[in-house]
Amino acid sequence: MSERAGRRKGGGRAGRREARASSVKAAAPYIQRKIPYVEILSEEGLQLIEDNADKLLEEVGIDFLDDPEVLELFQVAGASVDGTRVRFPRGMCRQIIQASAPSEYIQHARNPERSVVIGGKNTVLVPAYGSPFAHDLDKGRRYSTIEDFRNFVKLAYMAPGIHHSGGTVCEPVDLPVNKRHYDMVYSHFKYSDKPLMGSVTHYRRAQDTVDMAKLVFGDEFVDQNCVLTSLINVNSPMVFDGTMLGSLKVYARNNQSCVVSPFILAGAMSPVTVAGTCTQILAEAMAGIALTQLIRPGCPVVFGTFAAAVSMATGAPTFGTPEPSQVIYATAALARRLGVPYRSGGGLCGSKLPDAQAAYEAANTLQTAALAGVNFMLHTAGWLEGGLAVGYEKFVMDCDQASMIAVLLEGMDLSENAQAMDAFHEVGPGKHFLGSAHTLSNFESAFYRSTIADNNSFEQWSAEGSLDAAQRANGIWKKMLADYEAPALDSAIDEALLDFMAREKASFADRDY
Amino acid sequence: MSERAGRRKGGGRAGRREARASSVKAAAPYIQRKIPYVEILSEEGLQLIEDNADKLLEEVGIDFLDDPEVLELFQVAGASVDGTRVRFPRGMCRQIIQASAPSEYIQHARNPERSVVIGGKNTVLVPAYGSPFAHDLDKGRRYSTIEDFRNFVKLAYMAPGIHHSGGTVCEPVDLPVNKRHYDMVYSHFKYSDKPLMGSVTHYRRAQDTVDMAKLVFGDEFVDQNCVLTSLINVNSPMVFDGTMLGSLKVYARNNQSCVVSPFILAGAMSPVTVAGTCTQILAEAMAGIALTQLIRPGCPVVFGTFAAAVSMATGAPTFGTPEPSQVIYATAALARRLGVPYRSGGGLCGSKLPDAQAAYEAANTLQTAALAGVNFMLHTAGWLEGGLAVGYEKFVMDCDQASMIAVLLEGMDLSENAQAMDAFHEVGPGKHFLGSAHTLSNFESAFYRSTIADNNSFEQWSAEGSLDAAQRANGIWKKMLADYEAPALDSAIDEALLDFMAREKASFADRDY
Repeated sequence: MSERAGRRKGGGRAGRREARASSVKAAAPYIQRKIPYVEILSEEGLQLIEDNADKLLEEVGIDFLDDPEVLELFQVAGASVDGTRVRFPRGMCRQIIQASAPSEYIQHARNPERSVVIGGKNTVLVPAYGSPFAHDLDKGRRYSTIEDFRNFVKLAYMAPGIHHSGGTVCEPVDLPVNKRHYDMVYSHFKYSDKPLMGSVTHYRRAQDTVDMAKLVFGDEFVDQNCVLTSLINVNSPMVFDGTMLGSLKVYARNNQSCVVSPFILAGAMSPVTVAGTCTQILAEAMAGIALTQLIRPGCPVVFGTFAAAVSMATGAPTFGTPEPSQVIYATAALARRLGVPYRSGGGLCGSKLPDAQAAYEAANTLQTAALAGVNFMLHTAGWLEGGLAVGYEKFVMDCDQASMIAVLLEGMDLSENAQAMDAFHEVGPGKHFLGSAHTLSNFESAFYRSTIADNNSFEQWSAEGSLDAAQRANGIWKKMLADYEAPALDSAIDEALLDFMAREKASFADRDY
Repeated sequence: MSERAGRRKGGGRAGRREARASSVKAAAPYIQRKIPYVEILSEEGLQLIEDNADKLLEEVGIDFLDDPEVLELFQVAGASVDGTRVRFPRGMCRQIIQASAPSEYIQHARNPERSVVIGGKNTVLVPAYGSPFAHDLDKGRRYSTIEDFRNFVKLAYMAPGIHHSGGTVCEPVDLPVNKRHYDMVYSHFKYSDKPLMGSVTHYRRAQDTVDMAKLVFGDEFVDQNCVLTSLINVNSPMVFDGTMLGSLKVYARNNQSCVVSPFILAGAMSPVTVAGTCTQILAEAMAGIALTQLIRPGCPVVFGTFAAAVSMATGAPTFGTPEPSQVIYATAALARRLGVPYRSGGGLCGSKLPDAQAAYEAANTLQTAALAGVNFMLHTAGWLEGGLAVGYEKFVMDCDQASMIAVLLEGMDLSENAQAMDAFHEVGPGKHFLGSAHTLSNFESAFYRSTIADNNSFEQWSAEGSLDAAQRANGIWKKMLADYEAPALDSAIDEALLDFMAREKASFADRDY
């Protein structure tokens, strides 16, 4: 790392601290929940699942592939290792986790006003992740590119209801697989100042992400603070592969957060029942979370879930149906009992279009995750076609819903002003409240105003072209991109990032990955 | 009433009893909730609203228009009457209600297997109500007719997730205003055997509905049992008009149920805050419910709500936003504390089309109402454009969601089979569960299968015409109507109903309404 970059970073950190002190209260960069969690299981039900997960870990165990170091770590900690299979004595994973894993942590953004608290009563809403296709009404569905990627980073930056820049919002398939992570990480830092997720597709790419974060935040700051929350999928059922283990180890060693996420299409990668699926999710998550704590005790980590139901008729994954909702309600409660932050999906859907199917399924998932108490809501905005595509219109429609979630979780205002007893005396039976003093002094902040919904008269709506919601959303994302202004980025940091990328990309002739 | 009809009714009742004994357990004609209620207010918060509602009733009061009998009933019961204004001593309404109003009741259907329990932990899903327009993709939006009315009765009859035939599913505007109620009530009895709602637009029409019900169920049965649940809207703020009072009195006197529903576009008919709106709803509902108990102590009654938020920018009602959801969560809890069944809206939306706006808003409202603990969910299916239109495609899409609600409220199966511990031992890490013995013995009942969603591959979906959800729904309702078969109706009852209608309609030359 160049001296110059190091110097600037020091100054930047001091500046950040100053800025934090002066403005952290003014901004609300994430949701602080004020309503109770929704629970669908009793204490006995939750204990039953926990007991079964312990049995699963003890009697069946988990395979950790291509990573002798991980097997050794578990063996030293007291697990039984047989080939790649690790079996855990009853309670071992829970004890390891509860000894050191934090129940919440700050993920710092390069703009301190946008830093988020992940865990506790907080909810952070994050864009969709991982799509190889992009979709919009004009061009339809096509492979996504780095231009799409940058566009979604910009849209997420501009959306007040989205708290995080996400990670692989879509795959920039126009760039080489082994180099595109540089451009993705750079785009998050360049076009947004919200927190981001790192690359996980190779341990060297994870390390590259950490190295780039150090250019922005400074070496020491990164070692002592979380600046990356990254997605580690389990190869369910009950397998962690070498790629994911390699990335998990890099992030944990560097004190960065992993979202350990069993990836489950229930009925295929898990039993065809909700209770069985929850059991497996808990077992897999506990094994992966415990591993992070063996690598670096106290490093931040998140209990992840991704659960869709497989259609037994066609084998296709399905979304927004009641069984995955039950999984979310139950696993959120299990994560709370374990004492770690919880991640689930947000606006999931199977639809190819931003139509009614997409909206029913997304709303069902989003409401469920919010009420259940999700801390890190991946896929809040943009998800289409079971994650194969990210949609522009779907993205801005979901952002509207995301803003509503914040109001819902805020709970009911019971202040004297909100009780409005004066208004009743002022207005009385048979009159309307529109012009009352109470309404006039409250109407601006009164009710959530949707950016997407059209509630005008049929006649006015017809006169304006009879547009459906997706057509209106099409106009909205275009206007947002036209209005986009990049957040300031220290030019020395920008140069350091660009230098690093150029240097690294040039060295690929010597590499075997 | 003809002797013949009377005789047949007797036989029919005995037959019904027999049928009930043999098959009531086989059918599940309504939802019996097994998960906890979702509450967003603390005990203190709920008490505060109750206290404020009592103050509102005592200090401001409610206007009861054009009905001296009602004023007298309240005065005798201890209220202070000043003109049409009634002020209630603290706690008076609650005491009257808790002395006699049932916490749940059976509404009998002409097919006893379709009778529903309204109240307690039960949820009954009911079609949309009151639209002057109908909408479908082929013909667009137009005034609705008796043919539309019959079609929606048939669709509701065929939908497994809908438990009730509803009332004025749409206005048959091709029939005269003062006679169309005969055709509506007849259509419910003829084309469905699910329970129904009666006419409320004139006290004589309410009486006609009761008289027609007596032809179906018998005089004595109707006097002793609820066979009609009808909608009495409050003219919020704090006014009951003579029309609604007249119909309420007819139904209550005949031991039939009224859903006393404050009709509120918050910010216009109530204060522009959630807490103020809840206070007013509780006060209005308590006043109307108490009235039913003064008329006939013990008659069934429902605490209704309808709350949308008015856009402060345009004055238009808005749906599916967080504030109306907060109203539903809070008022459901207030109704439980009062000890009476609770009604709210289901698939509400402001959209003119069965598009993403319609679906987001409907799903948000439906999830909220179901989780809050609604007992009688009016507008579950078909509602468009703030209730101005009922949509064919929206109807079948909402029916799909209604069926999902039943699965969600059923809660998680924790049986040994559902725990699936054998499946884990059978399959193990890295394998899939699709062919396992546990999956094969459970897959048929495993996961909810949507009738609307398309989860096929993009290629297959494209090959099948790239239809959106509304286009698929268009094919579904047409097939349902083509496949419709009317439930058996005793021909003597049918004739009696037709005779009654013909006689009554012929007498209108002598009437002044």
